[in-house]
Amino acid sequence: MSMYTPHPENQFVFGLWTVGNPGRDTWGGATRGPLAPDEIVRRLGEIGAAGVCFHDNDLIPFDATPAEREEILRRFRKALDETGLRVTMATTNLAFHPAFKDGSFTANEPAVRRFAIAKAMRAIDLGAEVGAEIYVFWGGREGSETHASKPAPDALERYREALDFLCGYVMDHGYPMRFALEPKPNEPRGDLFLPTVGHALHFITRLQHPEMVGLNPEVAHETMTGLSFVHAVGQALWAEKLFHIDLNSQRIGRYDQDFRFGQEDLKETFFLVRALERAGYAGPKHFDAHPLRAEDAEGVWDFARGNIRTYLILREKARRFHEDAEIQAALAQAKVEEITVPTRPDGGLAGLRAQRPDPVALAQPGLGLERLDQLVNELLLGVR
Amino acid sequence: MSMYTPHPENQFVFGLWTVGNPGRDTWGGATRGPLAPDEIVRRLGEIGAAGVCFHDNDLIPFDATPAEREEILRRFRKALDETGLRVTMATTNLAFHPAFKDGSFTANEPAVRRFAIAKAMRAIDLGAEVGAEIYVFWGGREGSETHASKPAPDALERYREALDFLCGYVMDHGYPMRFALEPKPNEPRGDLFLPTVGHALHFITRLQHPEMVGLNPEVAHETMTGLSFVHAVGQALWAEKLFHIDLNSQRIGRYDQDFRFGQEDLKETFFLVRALERAGYAGPKHFDAHPLRAEDAEGVWDFARGNIRTYLILREKARRFHEDAEIQAALAQAKVEEITVPTRPDGGLAGLRAQRPDPVALAQPGLGLERLDQLVNELLLGVR
Amino acid sequence: MSMYTPHPENQFVFGLWTVGNPGRDTWGGATRGPLAPDEIVRRLGEIGAAGVCFHDNDLIPFDATPAEREEILRRFRKALDETGLRVTMATTNLAFHPAFKDGSFTANEPAVRRFAIAKAMRAIDLGAEVGAEIYVFWGGREGSETHASKPAPDALERYREALDFLCGYVMDHGYPMRFALEPKPNEPRGDLFLPTVGHALHFITRLQHPEMVGLNPEVAHETMTGLSFVHAVGQALWAEKLFHIDLNSQRIGRYDQDFRFGQEDLKETFFLVRALERAGYAGPKHFDAHPLRAEDAEGVWDFARGNIRTYLILREKARRFHEDAEIQAALAQAKVEEITVPTRPDGGLAGLRAQRPDPVALAQPGLGLERLDQLVNELLLGVR
Amino acid sequence: MSMYTPHPENQFVFGLWTVGNPGRDTWGGATRGPLAPDEIVRRLGEIGAAGVCFHDNDLIPFDATPAEREEILRRFRKALDETGLRVTMATTNLAFHPAFKDGSFTANEPAVRRFAIAKAMRAIDLGAEVGAEIYVFWGGREGSETHASKPAPDALERYREALDFLCGYVMDHGYPMRFALEPKPNEPRGDLFLPTVGHALHFITRLQHPEMVGLNPEVAHETMTGLSFVHAVGQALWAEKLFHIDLNSQRIGRYDQDFRFGQEDLKETFFLVRALERAGYAGPKHFDAHPLRAEDAEGVWDFARGNIRTYLILREKARRFHEDAEIQAALAQAKVEEITVPTRPDGGLAGLRAQRPDPVALAQPGLGLERLDQLVNELLLGVR
Repeated sequence: MSMYTPHPENQFVFGLWTVGNPGRDTWGGATRGPLAPDEIVRRLGEIGAAGVCFHDNDLIPFDATPAEREEILRRFRKALDETGLRVTMATTNLAFHPAFKDGSFTANEPAVRRFAIAKAMRAIDLGAEVGAEIYVFWGGREGSETHASKPAPDALERYREALDFLCGYVMDHGYPMRFALEPKPNEPRGDLFLPTVGHALHFITRLQHPEMVGLNPEVAHETMTGLSFVHAVGQALWAEKLFHIDLNSQRIGRYDQDFRFGQEDLKETFFLVRALERAGYAGPKHFDAHPLRAEDAEGVWDFARGNIRTYLILREKARRFHEDAEIQAALAQAKVEEITVPTRPDGGLAGLRAQRPDPVALAQPGLGLERLDQLVNELLLGVR
Repeated sequence: MSMYTPHPENQFVFGLWTVGNPGRDTWGGATRGPLAPDEIVRRLGEIGAAGVCFHDNDLIPFDATPAEREEILRRFRKALDETGLRVTMATTNLAFHPAFKDGSFTANEPAVRRFAIAKAMRAIDLGAEVGAEIYVFWGGREGSETHASKPAPDALERYREALDFLCGYVMDHGYPMRFALEPKPNEPRGDLFLPTVGHALHFITRLQHPEMVGLNPEVAHETMTGLSFVHAVGQALWAEKLFHIDLNSQRIGRYDQDFRFGQEDLKETFFLVRALERAGYAGPKHFDAHPLRAEDAEGVWDFARGNIRTYLILREKARRFHEDAEIQAALAQAKVEEITVPTRPDGGLAGLRAQRPDPVALAQPGLGLERLDQLVNELLLGVR
Repeated sequence: MSMYTPHPENQFVFGLWTVGNPGRDTWGGATRGPLAPDEIVRRLGEIGAAGVCFHDNDLIPFDATPAEREEILRRFRKALDETGLRVTMATTNLAFHPAFKDGSFTANEPAVRRFAIAKAMRAIDLGAEVGAEIYVFWGGREGSETHASKPAPDALERYREALDFLCGYVMDHGYPMRFALEPKPNEPRGDLFLPTVGHALHFITRLQHPEMVGLNPEVAHETMTGLSFVHAVGQALWAEKLFHIDLNSQRIGRYDQDFRFGQEDLKETFFLVRALERAGYAGPKHFDAHPLRAEDAEGVWDFARGNIRTYLILREKARRFHEDAEIQAALAQAKVEEITVPTRPDGGLAGLRAQRPDPVALAQPGLGLERLDQLVNELLLGVR
Repeated sequence: MSMYTPHPENQFVFGLWTVGNPGRDTWGGATRGPLAPDEIVRRLGEIGAAGVCFHDNDLIPFDATPAEREEILRRFRKALDETGLRVTMATTNLAFHPAFKDGSFTANEPAVRRFAIAKAMRAIDLGAEVGAEIYVFWGGREGSETHASKPAPDALERYREALDFLCGYVMDHGYPMRFALEPKPNEPRGDLFLPTVGHALHFITRLQHPEMVGLNPEVAHETMTGLSFVHAVGQALWAEKLFHIDLNSQRIGRYDQDFRFGQEDLKETFFLVRALERAGYAGPKHFDAHPLRAEDAEGVWDFARGNIRTYLILREKARRFHEDAEIQAALAQAKVEEITVPTRPDGGLAGLRAQRPDPVALAQPGLGLERLDQLVNELLLGVR
């Protein structure tokens, strides 16, 4: 259906590591072969993606020689040119190497922290070289399993130092690049720092250049704790800090599943799409998911298309939500519009203190939330 | 043992609703009779508490006449005078009355929001009248069960408006009072706004008077989501926003249990006490817990004493932690001190970019975290 | 739409306590007035319910006199007669009274256990009197907050004794009644016995009359722990122990929400409906949910109708699932039919031991689960 | 301290994959080198372990030639002889190979199921050859991410077929071997079959040879869902089905952490040790944990010793629990002994029906659970 055909302005994006994921997990070996970066770009072009993103070592292996680096980059750029895809975001892998086993920016050992910062600097250069305007930081190893080994206030201080330093680096080089922090509560470490959107939003306010740093919230990461991702994105939008977004799905209280967008919780997914569309969010929509391990090479692209289609289907539902007269009537009964109206009465503070409205009368009207929610369900189920 | 006898400077405090809890729950009726506020104060004095706190309607019933209000206050003050206890904190009950069924500061209906603000103003006056220097806001009804009924950015805007307004009210009256926000992720509503310490810390940065507002984090609330409370308190301390603290215990992923301090997770509890003591936290330590439903009137006071004893026992463990040579050796192996050392090398930014340390060498040293954590366990278990 | 109009054979049922719930919770007072049992029956008749169920004290207050009991019953029966509704299930409230604060069948105090059994006997008589063929046992207070107070093996032994005793009581009286156990993991107590469908299924195998006892699984209870309710019902069906079912919804890792059927997790709800329909489950479908606290008296019936409609909509989706050619093709690629084929080869055991198939070939075929799951999503979303 | 020195009769056991774990995870490479099986046996001998266990491919690589197999076995046996360690348990790796990506005994493809059974037969032979009396089945891939692909009742039927078949195989060969099922709720697959101790206990009752099959519950697996492991073990003991146990630790609602025994939740760990000791559990105590990724080769053995010490320390606490007069007095107040007394009064059924005790009197006595639990805490903390 053409209504669900992606356009470049939809900004649908995939990381090299998402469709390129070989199906390995802690208990099992790879089920799919590797895909070269340029091959991924070409396939992404075919399914209507607007861009691609990567960790430094997704594109350039950790041990690549300068010559290998140049050859990989040449091919990668050629594929970008041919397909018209852009690099929308880049990031650094600060999780894999054993050197980071105790953290990267918050490792106890200063030499490890310096190694991490240097790796990030080189990866920022690489990102800038291919036009990435967003640089993501996910602190996969920034955490601990025993509080005895890592006092949180000190670790946060080192985290801040690293980010301030790297902001300076970007500004010194005049890169047109902003940073986006990606919170996660746990896994691979017991407890991570900046575990939720809230913690990361607060952290940003304490940086030297808060205007340069925003968020890259991820459905799966926030959902692991059972927190509402829609509320999280709401707070990020309220703070004008939604710089990038990682779309996927996840069941509460489990290992990081990185399922296809919409695989879990269609309703929260719908409200997420609605929130993004209402806010006019224009940044990349990055499907940071990976195909199930039981997929073969072709299943990968069914997976990729599924992410896109689900977004577009739900976007259309969000449009209909506003046209549906019965839903609008239910919203009116629930007085949803009135939450946008300031509370302060004309008479100001003094008058309010003395006000003694009848609480019984205030308690009377039902909000009709059951009907409203049922109408949303029926809109989602396509029966209205 | 005298080592575990409370002193007033420990600032151990109980809310009227904690030891006064009658044992009612959603599925069961009260198992204990009511206790008058002045009686509670006297019993708290006997067990060594330094203070007491309350919701407006814990002290003054919702429907009390002015004369009843004065008589209750007179008796309450008399008990305070006789025992030397202080009122360390006050708060408003904005959760119980049916008028607040859709929220108080974030109700869709503006008249409800005004009613909530007016109730808070009167309760602030009451708090000021009895000397409360901390005023807590817990948004028990600020949330939703269906996102259709309450857009988060708009709700946060109303929440901010209410807090800004009430900050102004306190300043206008010259009350020596600061505010402390108490985050909670869910229950009694499906998803609450300001669900964690992180979200609340960020919210504060967007108020008109951020210096006047800090946090009242609660063990149970943060733990419900599985987030580390020690990390949460760490971030609050880092931000100098720990104005008050609610001590109790909770199992992850359950209804709000409000168990006795230390009933669950002795180790996280130990690290919490250690973090508070190291930071020199001097505010009230409020045991916001309630006795199990199976307790009778006397069991309530065993409960109350248990909270205090556990804190003091763990404080003593924290002291020994720093004197134990083997623990100190393990901390040295894990390089815990070095996390306090800035990362930046003398040569500055340019030099770091070019640094190519041997990653294999950086990956080599073991941190000895198993031994360190085992030593902590053995310290806790009293076998070292 | 007539496709979604309930018929008596659908066996949609509501408990008196569901639509009769006044909106009270731990933090808030009632938001709706009480409804008399006969009034509830009449309203249920209007919305197409086939039956009603109750706890003893939903119908007959704890302190009712014999005369009051008879008058209530007379009116209740009259309403049943007029509407054609049946009493499909009855149960005993063994949770509310303070006497049960330490348990009912597993209270440490033998006199409490005897009181509980006697109350259950009288309630069974009441159920039999009004034609209930299913009697449910939910052990709301059978659990503990500290393992020191209640050894699990002993408590299970007492639980078994009570059930065996009551089975005998029913048989002695020749009541045409079967028992259904309702598992729950926690709340109102810290840890409940028989926490999941699995534990309860096993418990039944150790009773004197296992054939007389089955399950009443509840969506919300199983989902609290994050376990799949569809798998739970699958195991109950496999064991031929699905005697009754409590339909509602719930978010993982939270307080017991008892939301409207389908309010949370439309997909798991769909697979549940599909499993029930495929298995030809013919017992009552009991919507053990309650309206949100923000509803008024009329919203209650929107709530009630929503439960029914969602079931019927999803039942129709389940029918289409089997007619959709593309879904059927995807099921064939995933070899779903073949899971019904016995594994054992003709040659028997000895031959299998020696078999050395090529594991690489076995690993090759992709199962196409991403496409299959996406097709399910699109069926649910009404775009195919 | 000699009180905490292990003896062979303690039956402390480690799997080859536990101390041999190289520190790899989904986001990171190995941090430690490989250890040969015979080397592991020798090191285990030094720290006081009584035995060792393995998956087939921990000992014999998947692609080993017969000659390599014999050489590995020769060395392994030599190490066993020299140290006196026994092989206490063996199991099959049915999770790693890509052929099992859709399951092993419950794969949709019958040829995969046959491959899995044949692999299990050969691994059972290997186990029997080295004297393993317990054979464990963990269904790591028996599950699904979309219910569309795997109906639970059919999958359970295939699971049962495999177990019945393999029971027959063991009996046919006269191996002195029993089976133990290891439940797990999720990870690596979305939802696993036999997710908890309860589900597995029930499954066993439906096998052809239930007497031959018991459980291998694991702390981490049960705890992931938030269920009480102490209750789970209690139900297994009640059913006389605790054949083996996997000791480690885990935080609720997270990825499978396999932490050192006692690293998390000292209190639940204490009650577990107490339950095992009271029941006279004499089977292997298998520490199915792995060292933190930040450990080096030596840290592995600190880790191993920590598991053992914690068990012995808690066993000593359990002994003191029974000698502590104040704890015994608190147990008496809570009437804990009386839960072991049958409920049935002498007069039998008829008398009970008519009993009308005063419920208010029954509700009166407090159980003193706060004091009891606090005494347990203080016993654990070594201050009594």
